[in-house]
Amino acid sequence: MNGAETVLRAAVDAGITTCFANPGTTEMPLVAAMDSTPGLRSVLCLFEGVCTGAADGYARIAGVPALTVLHLGPGLANGIANLHNARRAHTPVLNLIGEHATWHRDADPPLNSDIEALAATVCGRVTRLSEPTGLIDQFADLLAFVRHPFAGPTTAIVPHDLQLADIPDGRLPEQLVESRETVSADLVDQAAAAVKGGGAVLILGGDALTERGLAAAARIIAATDVVVYGGGFPARVERGKGRLSPRRLPYFPEHAAAALARFKAVVLVGEPEPVSFFGYAGHPGRFVRDDQQMITLAGPTGPAEAYVEALADHLGAPVDVTPPAPRGPAQTPPTGPITPQTLAEAIAWVQPEGAIVVDEGATSTGELYFRSAAHSAPHTYLTITGGAIGFGMPCATGAAIAGGGRRVLSLQADGSAMYTLQALWTQAREGCDVTTVICDNAAYRILGVELDRAGVSAGPTAASMVSLMPRLDWVSLARGMAVPAVAVDDVASLIAAVSRSIAEPGPMLIQARMV
Amino acid sequence: MNGAETVLRAAVDAGITTCFANPGTTEMPLVAAMDSTPGLRSVLCLFEGVCTGAADGYARIAGVPALTVLHLGPGLANGIANLHNARRAHTPVLNLIGEHATWHRDADPPLNSDIEALAATVCGRVTRLSEPTGLIDQFADLLAFVRHPFAGPTTAIVPHDLQLADIPDGRLPEQLVESRETVSADLVDQAAAAVKGGGAVLILGGDALTERGLAAAARIIAATDVVVYGGGFPARVERGKGRLSPRRLPYFPEHAAAALARFKAVVLVGEPEPVSFFGYAGHPGRFVRDDQQMITLAGPTGPAEAYVEALADHLGAPVDVTPPAPRGPAQTPPTGPITPQTLAEAIAWVQPEGAIVVDEGATSTGELYFRSAAHSAPHTYLTITGGAIGFGMPCATGAAIAGGGRRVLSLQADGSAMYTLQALWTQAREGCDVTTVICDNAAYRILGVELDRAGVSAGPTAASMVSLMPRLDWVSLARGMAVPAVAVDDVASLIAAVSRSIAEPGPMLIQARMV
Repeated sequence: MNGAETVLRAAVDAGITTCFANPGTTEMPLVAAMDSTPGLRSVLCLFEGVCTGAADGYARIAGVPALTVLHLGPGLANGIANLHNARRAHTPVLNLIGEHATWHRDADPPLNSDIEALAATVCGRVTRLSEPTGLIDQFADLLAFVRHPFAGPTTAIVPHDLQLADIPDGRLPEQLVESRETVSADLVDQAAAAVKGGGAVLILGGDALTERGLAAAARIIAATDVVVYGGGFPARVERGKGRLSPRRLPYFPEHAAAALARFKAVVLVGEPEPVSFFGYAGHPGRFVRDDQQMITLAGPTGPAEAYVEALADHLGAPVDVTPPAPRGPAQTPPTGPITPQTLAEAIAWVQPEGAIVVDEGATSTGELYFRSAAHSAPHTYLTITGGAIGFGMPCATGAAIAGGGRRVLSLQADGSAMYTLQALWTQAREGCDVTTVICDNAAYRILGVELDRAGVSAGPTAASMVSLMPRLDWVSLARGMAVPAVAVDDVASLIAAVSRSIAEPGPMLIQARMV
Repeated sequence: MNGAETVLRAAVDAGITTCFANPGTTEMPLVAAMDSTPGLRSVLCLFEGVCTGAADGYARIAGVPALTVLHLGPGLANGIANLHNARRAHTPVLNLIGEHATWHRDADPPLNSDIEALAATVCGRVTRLSEPTGLIDQFADLLAFVRHPFAGPTTAIVPHDLQLADIPDGRLPEQLVESRETVSADLVDQAAAAVKGGGAVLILGGDALTERGLAAAARIIAATDVVVYGGGFPARVERGKGRLSPRRLPYFPEHAAAALARFKAVVLVGEPEPVSFFGYAGHPGRFVRDDQQMITLAGPTGPAEAYVEALADHLGAPVDVTPPAPRGPAQTPPTGPITPQTLAEAIAWVQPEGAIVVDEGATSTGELYFRSAAHSAPHTYLTITGGAIGFGMPCATGAAIAGGGRRVLSLQADGSAMYTLQALWTQAREGCDVTTVICDNAAYRILGVELDRAGVSAGPTAASMVSLMPRLDWVSLARGMAVPAVAVDDVASLIAAVSRSIAEPGPMLIQARMV
């Protein structure tokens, strides 16, 4: 077996069976090896940011990482924005970068660049595979690392000559998964005391947002006066009727700080310390004051679900409680023009059980998060953890491939959708069950809000910098990539179009023209 | 004046008057300052790779750098592939990256990442502006660096609070341009001796490929038996009737090494040592053998034009020579299906005087380079210097904005065009005079060639990884971004469509379906 075959087979043996690829010349042996690697599914993407975003979405749903195959430094660079989101989601991803032949690198050919430096900005581990004899051990070490559920992105640099080299027989070490943190009884004691003392807030993230984690949090609510928040941008949260719907920390710092101001203790379970998305002069950057107690049961990579359950048990909370139903007006199908409000009502109305909602709707989908929790059947919600735009359509693609028939609702802002629109082609090619809704307001609306916040009066140039005119025709863009598409101008038509899409296999795009 | 206004005004004072922007929240003060900066033209792009590629194309034509405005680390990362091309072209570019407020960075907010590490992979200088008092001096230093015509990309990281801070009055230092290398008489002596000795080859790059540089090379040909090559992928070369058309080094190493094998001396003027684009087992990585003399008059950033002229003078070459006319069959308008051959004949036939040809046609446009030299009126040719795909459409956009009415012919492969197709929207918005021809063979054809070279028999998965099916409908994609478009299936229709496009202002896209 050559190096390329050895690497792909070891990945499959470790349970990593899906590969999102945008290869070039230095990855050709890896491409050739795809055919001799049983059990590997290879998915072609027409831009590397699609590969990395799809790998993120895949692992968020499948619970196991995917491979990417990317071409040298520039190919990796194109994938970094979505690897940044995966890093903030702590999603395991394993990038395979074909590198120039070892003996040729000193010649500094045109595509040569510092792959390690690029990868290190987003990867917890970067390994340059170097010798045929050591390859199995080096790669096994990386596989063990990336099999941790919160490993985040990792990169293996695989020189072209090593891909072609004969590799001595070798078995992967039996024990691939690194041990995970365990629950500390002392920390649970501390948190229980704070919660029993009254005036505590629990902020959930990571795997505290699973069905089990949320059920445990509902038990704590039933037993104490604790208030439960979800973090700002969770990687994955289970939502819908019958599940606890934690409050969400507001986006702007003055609101978030105000929300937390009254609590004596802040208990973090699967979340880092809550901080402002951006720093605004005159507003707080950190939301927990020095005179408030802050207890971190688990950070984002910790065993958060286990901690919530341990805390509920320690507090002697009742089991099998019904979570408080989220407040919300009675649900009726909305009518009239499409606004952020009616769009949320419409999606919540039609969204099927088991849906995966991918939310990169920016200013247009803030309502949806709570609206669907109150009124929709159980579903899974994925958000843009790292704030790097261009997350949604690739993530939806990977989530659909992992979801095995679960309908993916991909809520997209028109501005952010343009970053990685190539994902639509992969959705068509793979027959992904993705319904994309473009929230079309012909603007970088969030930036208009930011200009207002900055208190500057936008001149004509600044105003034009946040205006998406000429207006994008998303129906044509989708059709250009073989995805059926329609445009709608009112919310009844939006509901009809989403319903039709859900009823039919494969992708569809709906351009929702908003007022 | 605040920091943002100071930076933009200093750039304009230094002659940098065009800005390609894809801003986010941390760049809002820079966006607001655009309106208070007289003489600055701001161009919105819907993806950062468009900004950086446009800045590269702009500077190649204008001879002065452009600004980009990019959002934090992920925004910069999206622009790195085209900055890589600019680095290999040694094109000056000045990136302004809005960074988190200084006081907020320790909180590690979601979009925080290592901007310096990313920038250092493609930039010759990276400066974090740090204090209001030192800002003018720090920025002047960077401006001086980037005003060198071969400076390559540079980056200024501008924290949000510094953009908003009051900046003390300060004048930019008078002397902004760093001194350039001068011609060494000793080196010219050595090269003249080698050329006079017979059996020498001159390889031209950098600014040896200007009209003056090529005229000087033609003089040397008239006086000696020297053979003149152009480097593999020149940043900019003046071509067309009446100009010397240097041979081009072949792409694959066995052909390139064979082309240079017979020479006793290799004289480099504006080029690095010629090496293989990729390393292939059993083929040479470097093309100049140890027993051949190699003289570097100037590397890619050296004063190559001055060296060719000095060498011609030193050799006593005649002045005002007519360069040898490139060989080629008599030109008639081609007919029949569209092949790489007929496509080249068609473009060479219709291409107007003063055209700027941007070539990212990969396997489809190899013929064009020579065909248009023999038969077309004088024009400028730009190529993909760093091999990072997604170069062409952004570069064409920037070249059109710098070109002031010169028609840009953007030759694109269907695979590579998908990387940065968002450039079409900017072409529509700005009314750029760009005619895009998509050489549509529904494949990553170059990778099929590479699979064949690797001697592997491609299985069905490998074959599907180089197939662009479902076929992209570029007419719809272009219309989605408000660019008029047509598809053509024969070369007579291609000629008619390109002619129509040339006759009308603004952009147009032509999907050339090849056989």
